[in-house]
Amino acid sequence: MSLETKTKPLFITIEGGEGVGKTTNVEYIKQLLNASGTEFIHTREPGGTPLAEELRELLLSKRGEQVDEMAELLLVFAARSQHLNTKILPALSRGEWVLCDRFTDATYAYQGCGRNMSTALIEQLEQTVQQGVQPDLTLLLDVPVEIGMERARQRGELDRFESEQLAFFHRVREGYLRRAADNPQRFAVIDASQPLADVQAQIAGVILPMLANTP
Amino acid sequence: MSLETKTKPLFITIEGGEGVGKTTNVEYIKQLLNASGTEFIHTREPGGTPLAEELRELLLSKRGEQVDEMAELLLVFAARSQHLNTKILPALSRGEWVLCDRFTDATYAYQGCGRNMSTALIEQLEQTVQQGVQPDLTLLLDVPVEIGMERARQRGELDRFESEQLAFFHRVREGYLRRAADNPQRFAVIDASQPLADVQAQIAGVILPMLANTP
Repeated sequence: MSLETKTKPLFITIEGGEGVGKTTNVEYIKQLLNASGTEFIHTREPGGTPLAEELRELLLSKRGEQVDEMAELLLVFAARSQHLNTKILPALSRGEWVLCDRFTDATYAYQGCGRNMSTALIEQLEQTVQQGVQPDLTLLLDVPVEIGMERARQRGELDRFESEQLAFFHRVREGYLRRAADNPQRFAVIDASQPLADVQAQIAGVILPMLANTP
Repeated sequence: MSLETKTKPLFITIEGGEGVGKTTNVEYIKQLLNASGTEFIHTREPGGTPLAEELRELLLSKRGEQVDEMAELLLVFAARSQHLNTKILPALSRGEWVLCDRFTDATYAYQGCGRNMSTALIEQLEQTVQQGVQPDLTLLLDVPVEIGMERARQRGELDRFESEQLAFFHRVREGYLRRAADNPQRFAVIDASQPLADVQAQIAGVILPMLANTP
């Protein structure tokens, strides 16, 4: 086995609804990667490049104008195309791992299940933009909707998505769990309703064996 | 024939490359519509709503970051979806004509021919976003590329598109002329290299017979 094969950089995504603890646990994963000496970038969607971050602002800000659902979906994939082609793929090519806070599974969960947009259309856009690129590992942080929403509320003012009704977030959670069930080869579902130490033990149990394969 | 049928509002688009005289001639068309008492809105693409105008700014501004071509194409259709569903279609439903400065033919010309992006992909996005909606009349203002570019340069600082190389604009012009040849039922090609009075006579020759059908 060549060194190149042994150290193939991984594309890891972190997914989950509101208040599941993504920020805290992403920091923990970064510690694990740093401790092992793994070169990586940490990025997020929507966003990750100056143009894509401007699109994130447009998507998340509350506005007087009703945002057309198709426009929202196309903006998400526009930002993704910019992010994937100018940041994620170049990092992987340089041999760096990519740790990305939300990716296309979020589109299936939020726009697909949350807004009831066509899964076939999302698949078509995914194929057009990603040309088959998929994360190697997706960590889904899962908590019951009521717990997550209470945590999000305590964090302060809610953005355009966080202000949706409870039924929306139940659909988002179901969407995420269905994605995990349909893609077991890359998904690890983490029960994020447990105490933090237990959540991090679950995450370490998934990440450390992958790091063991690096020099 | 019922009054509703007789006064069916028309969706008119004005197309053309840089420096073909769109602004001047749109003003002339507005005069013709106003003189006949026709209710209409005047709008433009990309843009036409607050969100879509923000996207226009993102698309036209020069930036350090290289803009991914797929991201650009998806942004154009995101803005179009917002514009069509929240402004153009509601205006037509109210019985108002719509005069729109550039629409999807510009996408075929600029992104398709100019940037050599897949026509099949543009057709797919057009169908997804427009669901068959097409302009009733498209006025293509056509001038040789060198004349148009000279006019655009005299106007002042060039935006991200206007700063492209000459070969790009030759492809854009060819793209427009091919769209006109492929859609003769709705296209009127105006020779905009002639003196203004002659150009406006050509435009009046197309617009006035349509107005004659309104009360």
